[in-house]
Amino acid sequence: MMSIRIVLCQTSHSGNIGASARAMKNMGLEQLVLVSPKDFPSAHASARASGADDLLAHASVVATLEEAIAPCQLVLGTSARTRTLPQPLINARDAAKIVKEASAKQQEVAIVFGHERNGLSNHELSLCHKHIQIPCNPDFSSLNLAAAVQVVTYELKMATINQGMPHTEEPYDALASHQDMEGFYTHLQQTLEAIEFLDPKFPKKIMPKIRRLFTRAEAEVTELNILRGILTAINRKFK
Amino acid sequence: MMSIRIVLCQTSHSGNIGASARAMKNMGLEQLVLVSPKDFPSAHASARASGADDLLAHASVVATLEEAIAPCQLVLGTSARTRTLPQPLINARDAAKIVKEASAKQQEVAIVFGHERNGLSNHELSLCHKHIQIPCNPDFSSLNLAAAVQVVTYELKMATINQGMPHTEEPYDALASHQDMEGFYTHLQQTLEAIEFLDPKFPKKIMPKIRRLFTRAEAEVTELNILRGILTAINRKFK
Repeated sequence: MMSIRIVLCQTSHSGNIGASARAMKNMGLEQLVLVSPKDFPSAHASARASGADDLLAHASVVATLEEAIAPCQLVLGTSARTRTLPQPLINARDAAKIVKEASAKQQEVAIVFGHERNGLSNHELSLCHKHIQIPCNPDFSSLNLAAAVQVVTYELKMATINQGMPHTEEPYDALASHQDMEGFYTHLQQTLEAIEFLDPKFPKKIMPKIRRLFTRAEAEVTELNILRGILTAINRKFK
Repeated sequence: MMSIRIVLCQTSHSGNIGASARAMKNMGLEQLVLVSPKDFPSAHASARASGADDLLAHASVVATLEEAIAPCQLVLGTSARTRTLPQPLINARDAAKIVKEASAKQQEVAIVFGHERNGLSNHELSLCHKHIQIPCNPDFSSLNLAAAVQVVTYELKMATINQGMPHTEEPYDALASHQDMEGFYTHLQQTLEAIEFLDPKFPKKIMPKIRRLFTRAEAEVTELNILRGILTAINRKFK
């Protein structure tokens, strides 16, 4: 449970940060990362933390989601809204199973929550490997932020106490981190512009689709090295 | 779900009543019963209900827990504290199964939550058939009242829906067929040989690794078209 970080993006109400910290500590989690919170540190956050002040004191505050998840190999985003360019959709219970398996392989995991009113933006969700939806009333589907953190962390707790499944030691290589993948995308975009596949003025038409494909693949480090090697070979050929 | 009432006893903070109403409505529950609330109706409750005001407007307010549960055949009490004179102890997931079975038999069910600081009194818990404990960090086991309502009602929701993955409503694009993928691999291998990345004598060192990556990604037809477009652009550049 120690390698799991909860990331809250652009939280407006600091009371929700405190309540989320309390929910995390109730369920045995410790790492809180805040992306551009509107008001933090704050007395409201401490009041609602009700004894989880230590999590607030040790919370990291960063400017972007990219920074928050840089070292992570598994990133799950929680959002009630479905999207036109979707990520694989899972519920909170299945998410807990996936996180448990990743933790058993020593992976760094992030679970990301969006802004209170708008949720995760399309860009934020596109950085996530999977999209968690909490099953609920379709006519009233927006949970309070801390309530969503409570449900997801509760499922993590339940997954770790139900020691039903023995985990299989898959001989997977280490997965590429977010940072590794960003390096690859930069290299790829430069190359696609060099071969005149991509119009540098409009990279946004194609790059998000390519990112989505590779995000789904969850590339391993050695696979990423092959892909980078191909890009280097293309560029060398042109010089 | 309609025959299940949530009973909150002696609630001190009316914000918790509003947040509990929101949690209930999120999970498809409607019947809220308040036993001697300290401050209700209240603007705090409405603010935290965030659209679940209808549950507050229809909430029953009664003087005693006995009145609140009078017509009920199954009464479950939620509390973090164990007791010297214990009731049968179950977790929230098992509680949801029991409630589901009772509802299927048209029984009236109550789930009872105690005061924010003290929880259910021994007398209140003695009126319950079973004692629900939410699994949590033994060193920090007191959940916020609305958070506890959220977890229990979430388990009720999970018990009433089909388990497993929610399916994506947005239609994914069609997945590429085996034949499509083979066409892509042939095109890719020719290209990798043309840029001298791949030794034509030993394609087997790299191609199986690339195949594994793309197999895992389960490429859609439009994604495959983008990849084929990139290969065509590379080949055109060389001619």
